[in-house]
Amino acid sequence: MRLTSFTDFGLRVLMRLAAVPGAGASTAELATELGISRNHLAKVVQALARAGYLATRRGGGGGVMLAHAPADIRMGEVVRTLEQGQALVECLAQGPSLCTLDGCCRMKHRLRAAEEAFLAELNRSTLAQIALPRVGATTA
Amino acid sequence: MRLTSFTDFGLRVLMRLAAVPGAGASTAELATELGISRNHLAKVVQALARAGYLATRRGGGGGVMLAHAPADIRMGEVVRTLEQGQALVECLAQGPSLCTLDGCCRMKHRLRAAEEAFLAELNRSTLAQIALPRVGATTA
Repeated sequence: MRLTSFTDFGLRVLMRLAAVPGAGASTAELATELGISRNHLAKVVQALARAGYLATRRGGGGGVMLAHAPADIRMGEVVRTLEQGQALVECLAQGPSLCTLDGCCRMKHRLRAAEEAFLAELNRSTLAQIALPRVGATTA
Repeated sequence: MRLTSFTDFGLRVLMRLAAVPGAGASTAELATELGISRNHLAKVVQALARAGYLATRRGGGGGVMLAHAPADIRMGEVVRTLEQGQALVECLAQGPSLCTLDGCCRMKHRLRAAEEAFLAELNRSTLAQIALPRVGATTA
């Protein structure tokens, strides 16, 4: 079972920003600190901003910062957002399925339930609980 | 979140064989019925046999059949077996991690717990509960 590296990177960005919730960071800084290409980082940040997790600021003092308190951000919801469009198996994707068992399969809804159990378990944690330690982070 | 197509195919093979638990099927038959290439099918069958789920018979009346009663096969364990080596995120794979947060990450064990919740939910189902209906299957 795999999450996309897009989701993995998104989680890292949030954990890093939650180290100093009031402070922003530039995508260049984040890319360097997290060892992710600026190109990938920019796409991840864009998705997190679109989903309302990050606020972006342009200009000299620009960058990104958390749009909510870390204690209000549930990790299952974050993963659900970042994994959008990644179906667990082919038949759970949008559009017609190529599976010859489609219509008589009794596994499909069990896989969906398992995916919900996965996200529910992650929803027990908030971003506040997985924030990186402040060490090395710029204080606000 | 994605399962490999290898796992997807393995689940289909088991569901199909469980339709008539006492009867075997050749990999050629299974490949045709399930619309999977014979090459892929052979690899999946091999993995399921190695894990003890299938018994294989050579020769004219040869093929594969379930090695256990479908009611004794838990779907979470099947998925765990078929997904072996597929780490949820890079840092959960064997070997050194490239993640710069390694060592101070508090998300890692939560992801592992979520994966266990996923498998536990699937373990609530046995193969007997998701066997395909007998329609179209050769009776023993």
